[in-house]
Amino acid sequence: MAKKNLAVGIDIGGTNTVFGFVDREGNIVAEGRMTTCNYEKAEGYIAALYEKIMLTGKEIKQGFELKGFGIGAPMGNINKGTIEYSAALPWKGVIPLSDIFHAHTKLPVIVTNDANAAAVGEMIYGGAKKMKDFVVITLGTGLGSGFVVDGKLMYGHDGFAGEIGHTPVRPESSDRECGCGKKGCLETYVSATGLKRTFIKILADSRQPSEFRKYSFDAINAEMIFNAAKKGDKLAIRAFEKTGKILGYKLAEVISHTSPEAIFLFGGLAMAKDLIFKPAKKYMEEYLLSIYQNKVKLLPSKLNTKNAAVLGASSLVWSNIES
Amino acid sequence: MAKKNLAVGIDIGGTNTVFGFVDREGNIVAEGRMTTCNYEKAEGYIAALYEKIMLTGKEIKQGFELKGFGIGAPMGNINKGTIEYSAALPWKGVIPLSDIFHAHTKLPVIVTNDANAAAVGEMIYGGAKKMKDFVVITLGTGLGSGFVVDGKLMYGHDGFAGEIGHTPVRPESSDRECGCGKKGCLETYVSATGLKRTFIKILADSRQPSEFRKYSFDAINAEMIFNAAKKGDKLAIRAFEKTGKILGYKLAEVISHTSPEAIFLFGGLAMAKDLIFKPAKKYMEEYLLSIYQNKVKLLPSKLNTKNAAVLGASSLVWSNIES
Repeated sequence: MAKKNLAVGIDIGGTNTVFGFVDREGNIVAEGRMTTCNYEKAEGYIAALYEKIMLTGKEIKQGFELKGFGIGAPMGNINKGTIEYSAALPWKGVIPLSDIFHAHTKLPVIVTNDANAAAVGEMIYGGAKKMKDFVVITLGTGLGSGFVVDGKLMYGHDGFAGEIGHTPVRPESSDRECGCGKKGCLETYVSATGLKRTFIKILADSRQPSEFRKYSFDAINAEMIFNAAKKGDKLAIRAFEKTGKILGYKLAEVISHTSPEAIFLFGGLAMAKDLIFKPAKKYMEEYLLSIYQNKVKLLPSKLNTKNAAVLGASSLVWSNIES
Repeated sequence: MAKKNLAVGIDIGGTNTVFGFVDREGNIVAEGRMTTCNYEKAEGYIAALYEKIMLTGKEIKQGFELKGFGIGAPMGNINKGTIEYSAALPWKGVIPLSDIFHAHTKLPVIVTNDANAAAVGEMIYGGAKKMKDFVVITLGTGLGSGFVVDGKLMYGHDGFAGEIGHTPVRPESSDRECGCGKKGCLETYVSATGLKRTFIKILADSRQPSEFRKYSFDAINAEMIFNAAKKGDKLAIRAFEKTGKILGYKLAEVISHTSPEAIFLFGGLAMAKDLIFKPAKKYMEEYLLSIYQNKVKLLPSKLNTKNAAVLGASSLVWSNIES
């Protein structure tokens, strides 16, 4: 039997690192995880990670040929193979991730941020297989975006294209503080954290009875608000509507920049389905210039599984081989 | 002597059409013009235009080989070679400009909007010769934008990428009506017309004496405001500052989408130099996410001459040949 080609996808998060061996069709044949934050230096972390990956590879029964490593990491820079000044990770400054990795392997190592990895994943395995121009918006703790233009991931001049999470929703008139040091960034409204902040402000303005008045800010999370909204809680539904509306007009703006065929929503908040898609679609169409209206598809990511980040990271390897 | 290669650049405006025979270095060797609005049908207009171009070509002394026609037109669609629903032109609906032109010639005919033509012109003849990722913003009666991504003009899925003139400055809180039917679009603030509207509102709020109180809305234009600002008129300077500020934070947003090496300002308002560049640069940097700060050049277009639009249109031919 011919050897199967596999790629390793690695998702580096602030707390945990998850990885998997993935085939060209997006099947994960082996996987593993380790903590990210136990290593003072990136070199030690990578050495431990590489060893763990190799051990996991030995468990795979079928013969395979490894084609490379794809890494999704906060502030990952695809031009340079680095992580730069990531607030989420334990190592400060510019970390030459790809170089450190190459001390262990001669195979290709491609580094990018989670949202770019999700965009390539959508193109290689997901709903954008036949698309040349599309956008993926990742809605997690923050908001990321990856743009594919004419069949290729858009890097920009310095490898940092697609940071729309830090564009303002209302310049100069928002008090909502962002982790980046500015106020009123899109991700302070449209993300799991943003939904919660909006919900708690709605709760404070309203006089309506709510079980949530018993919980602290820290105790409330997006999933609780989602469950309440599903049961018909009006304040929770209003929080989703407001979040979707802000997302909708930012999507109109995104379309005016790059004129995509589709926009995919990826991650936790996107799983709230109609609660977020309905207002987002409505206000997106309302704010769109007429030449774009009723043309651009707003779709859930087809990678929306627990392994989505690993899939996205692994897809970088196939994309690198096939381009 | 070898024949010189020439391209015809055509700039179609609502009132006049201007064209020129241009060499690869951006020298215009012959030019001409005709009215746009005398022709009820696009077919008749194109027939007359083609004849006029051929007559002008006969005046060129040196032997040359014509390589194609580049056309810049409002709502020109590069994917389809059409003009679509342009409010500025006399022909309604979708006009298959390239097809109509091909009744007269077998040479390539490339159609796009003025801003995309300006972007390609900057790359072929101007300040972006060695750049692969940059943006051109055209500031005329309206505001257009052309994006070059990885060395190629970004069209988007339907050929309409780069309509940032119709993204909102402040969603839901602007009363300023736009020609597109929406309110508060960027071009209602940042354009020759936008500057004038802002200036007249500043005049209405202020109690400061001003010669402009003698002039009607219709009698005031951007050039008068520019001349007043140069002489130190505080209200005129304030209008430029406000316009530059709004431009500045929109530029920050543009950078967060595509991460360009440089942004070029093109057209009348850009010729106001520091009056517009200083506030635009200041607020652009202020609103930028730190990873982009002090990296992106804000530059005047090197095509800023009276023939810029013809140059831009002609460059489409070279770009088509060389890509």
